[in-house]
Amino acid sequence: MGPGQVPSRDWLFAALAAPMVTAAVTVLTAGSAIAAGSSPIYGVTIPDGYRNWELVAPSLEADPLNELRAILGNDLAMAAYRAGTLPFPDGTILAKLAWKRVQSDDFDAASVPGAATTVQFMVKDSKKYAATGGWGFGRFVGGEPVDEAQHETCFGCHQANVKDHDLVFTRLAP
Amino acid sequence: MGPGQVPSRDWLFAALAAPMVTAAVTVLTAGSAIAAGSSPIYGVTIPDGYRNWELVAPSLEADPLNELRAILGNDLAMAAYRAGTLPFPDGTILAKLAWKRVQSDDFDAASVPGAATTVQFMVKDSKKYAATGGWGFGRFVGGEPVDEAQHETCFGCHQANVKDHDLVFTRLAP
Repeated sequence: MGPGQVPSRDWLFAALAAPMVTAAVTVLTAGSAIAAGSSPIYGVTIPDGYRNWELVAPSLEADPLNELRAILGNDLAMAAYRAGTLPFPDGTILAKLAWKRVQSDDFDAASVPGAATTVQFMVKDSKKYAATGGWGFGRFVGGEPVDEAQHETCFGCHQANVKDHDLVFTRLAP
Repeated sequence: MGPGQVPSRDWLFAALAAPMVTAAVTVLTAGSAIAAGSSPIYGVTIPDGYRNWELVAPSLEADPLNELRAILGNDLAMAAYRAGTLPFPDGTILAKLAWKRVQSDDFDAASVPGAATTVQFMVKDSKKYAATGGWGFGRFVGGEPVDEAQHETCFGCHQANVKDHDLVFTRLAP
């Protein structure tokens, strides 16, 4: 098998463990209250096990944020990326982990992750989030969602910049 | 379960799929020829499925290389990182993927992976690689190992800079 092909792992995860991850995304019915720990507007919660997901790509955010980032995807996300499928299917979740960029203590030419800043999620549910292109957004600091004002900016920026890529900035790094 | 805890996936992978990945690392007996496609000096080959491994951390390499990088680890590597275990156990493999850093087409403040440059591996085998701190090294461009001269530089640099971290530069990003 070549890189990208570990069917037994993927199959096992899809068959047995994926439902656990998917279940971690709170699906709120219209008009229900936003649960504690979930994002304003969207009701997105931090999905269990996201730190174990596969890498879509790293990125660098310039000053003033000066952050190294890594975008991870759940199995549905990775399968869609590898197949080149747009739009992403319902159940797709993307996670963006961000850290302050700091000088490596060990190597002059390298900079590396410092303190974690935000963790952000995009959750695809074409019915629940029909008004925002099928995506719900959640931004978390220290495990807690940030305020509603910050969540009001998510959709507009994605819509303005990447409406032709199903509102997703990140491309799969080879 | 919180982030970092998906025992069913990890357990399934460890029990059923990890032997396939481990088997992909060519273990050459002393004095045998270096097989085609394997690194000079060390005989390290590209392990199947490494692109599916979990993220240890991203990093940035300054000019002149100007690369975004992501270090991935196999299950033994990730378990050791999370437990804080040093030295890493035999069977650990770390993969460093590198891409030219390019301006994002979609967002002014972001830079993202461009063309892939090198893919590099560190393989732990304390007996086979006893002369180099237990690690074998492999650097690949376009799927092919680079020359012996480049591989002669690996151990010396790791030894000079991170001998107190089992010769591994990368720390686990939270």
